Amino acid sequence: MVKQGWKASVSLADGRELIYFGESAAWAAGHPDQRPASRFAASSELRYDALLGEWVIVAHHRQERTYLPSADECPLDPSCDGRFTEIPAPSYEVAVIENRFPSLATPSATVPARDGLLGVRPGNGRCEVVCYTPDHSASFADLTREQAALVLAAWTDRTAALSALPGVEQVLCFENRGQEIGVTLTHPHGQIYSYPFVGPRTSRMLATSAAYRRETGRNLFDAVLAAERADGSRIVLAGDHWTAFVPHAARWPYEVHVYPHQRVPDLQSLTAAGREEFCSLYLDLLRAFDRLFGMPAPYISAWQQAPVRQGREEFALHLEVFTIRRAPAKLKHLGGSETGTGAFTNDIAPETAASVLRDALRGKAA
Amino acid sequence: MVKQGWKASVSLADGRELIYFGESAAWAAGHPDQRPASRFAASSELRYDALLGEWVIVAHHRQERTYLPSADECPLDPSCDGRFTEIPAPSYEVAVIENRFPSLATPSATVPARDGLLGVRPGNGRCEVVCYTPDHSASFADLTREQAALVLAAWTDRTAALSALPGVEQVLCFENRGQEIGVTLTHPHGQIYSYPFVGPRTSRMLATSAAYRRETGRNLFDAVLAAERADGSRIVLAGDHWTAFVPHAARWPYEVHVYPHQRVPDLQSLTAAGREEFCSLYLDLLRAFDRLFGMPAPYISAWQQAPVRQGREEFALHLEVFTIRRAPAKLKHLGGSETGTGAFTNDIAPETAASVLRDALRGKAA
Repeated sequence: MVKQGWKASVSLADGRELIYFGESAAWAAGHPDQRPASRFAASSELRYDALLGEWVIVAHHRQERTYLPSADECPLDPSCDGRFTEIPAPSYEVAVIENRFPSLATPSATVPARDGLLGVRPGNGRCEVVCYTPDHSASFADLTREQAALVLAAWTDRTAALSALPGVEQVLCFENRGQEIGVTLTHPHGQIYSYPFVGPRTSRMLATSAAYRRETGRNLFDAVLAAERADGSRIVLAGDHWTAFVPHAARWPYEVHVYPHQRVPDLQSLTAAGREEFCSLYLDLLRAFDRLFGMPAPYISAWQQAPVRQGREEFALHLEVFTIRRAPAKLKHLGGSETGTGAFTNDIAPETAASVLRDALRGKAA
Repeated sequence: MVKQGWKASVSLADGRELIYFGESAAWAAGHPDQRPASRFAASSELRYDALLGEWVIVAHHRQERTYLPSADECPLDPSCDGRFTEIPAPSYEVAVIENRFPSLATPSATVPARDGLLGVRPGNGRCEVVCYTPDHSASFADLTREQAALVLAAWTDRTAALSALPGVEQVLCFENRGQEIGVTLTHPHGQIYSYPFVGPRTSRMLATSAAYRRETGRNLFDAVLAAERADGSRIVLAGDHWTAFVPHAARWPYEVHVYPHQRVPDLQSLTAAGREEFCSLYLDLLRAFDRLFGMPAPYISAWQQAPVRQGREEFALHLEVFTIRRAPAKLKHLGGSETGTGAFTNDIAPETAASVLRDALRGKAA
């Protein structure tokens, strides 16, 4: 957890919150936002898809969001030399900002809530941006273990804070990395979404784990982790507290799931020893991803955590990270099969992916 | 349906089937494959994802598939001037070929079937490529209505044939168009997958429509179509037999669902008048997609049909088409929210998308 005094919150000129983490937090918070005051207005709504029984977020103000600014206009750099960015301080360690172009925001009602086949709800929630480092050209894999630990502390703190907001049902800490993934800012950063519903993929895991409990009396996540550890052919990294493996039914070319050996529902529940080992292991893993093809891997990394009010006894915290690159010049895209029926095709056998990743961990390219 | 004599099947040198459609079918079939005989071997397996309760297809032979060959090496051109392609005839109208690098093939057992948390099944099924025209540089939108009608006849014929194969549970006719979507061959073509399972997205629609029937006594698809027609704000095109609309909860920047007014389970059940109107309407729609940003739209188009043995009384045939382009130089990519929790964010309001598409139908760019 964040030590006392290692966290300081300020308001930006438009009213959004900025939270500094680290030893310099109080100092950084002493620098006021010098940009003109403006009103922060986001509109977002949830639309009900009756055929799939799922909510879709419509956030049309996001269409105007900042798109690949040049390096000298990066809004996630510290403010300096008269250039005022999203972060007023001239330096920072880790900074968390309310997203200026959020998918979800409170209050967010643009239309009255409506039930039925064309159901609508306000898109309440909160979206945050996590700046990993002031170094514009770095990436998560470049962080020291201490820096990674501070990011983990920030994820943990924000998960607890966002889970406590009224109406929040699920918190997702994730990183989209690489323009091939659609990243619109290249500064090393991740995001946190807090949702007013449990996402459909998470709901399915709650349903399968509840059914498995009824049928076997056991926890499904524990059983899957035990089966992967017993099989062994897809394990990529194993420590005292964590195991990283390519899942048996991986959907993406190089996909790794990272589980703590001791099941916990969320980041807040991790032990100090578990946190320390995770940081080493995750940095090794991300560096291996970048070594796969000798170039920065476009990846998505996301912490799967138990929802705020559902399935907390069964759901197991774990991290899922995958790259869409399947060869130096080839990406895996979703096609008609994936979007039409939901059936994924993976062109790389999970055991092959695990073997290639083990080689990359030892410093070899694919 | 295909008229008598408008269809002829031949075997390629490696044993795969090629089916010609159209007036020239019998003539085209008179041209034997002159390439050396070779063995056709594909291996594919299904992996069970116990956490999501879904099957994933692993087809590692596909990693070597033909990738963006130059125009003079296109395997979907007719054979001519001593260059032998996948299609031995010197010309054709519409040709359907068993995919040389299929995601699913029968027989396809590479490992013994296994139950349990690490379940495995052979990846039985059949994947076909539908060549729309011999013209390498055309696209579906360039077809005449007669050519489009022949493609529709081929989709219909193949759906019936593949549905009759042992073990096939679902047939998907679809097109991935554009390199931004990951297309590996630029020749105008679509694909047909026949699966040994009902895909997870389709399964959810079966579950929601069964629940709606229990609760209301009504059909869910009929109710959704009626609600969209009554609302009207998202309708893009309406004919005597079909309505095309941006769905209330669209996930993609410009997404259109096309429903026949008279619910039918599959392509075989369409009337002659319905077929004729569909071809006009679909060509208008694809041309409007290309007009959106004054450049060929990267799109995925897929026919949603009832599975072979489940939900045939409730499921409604319809076509879903969407582009991932949200602005001239910007694509919608899936990020951590979509892949992590399954929650989609759409940056364009469906009503705006419908209005822009209506303008594009009248010849105006966005």
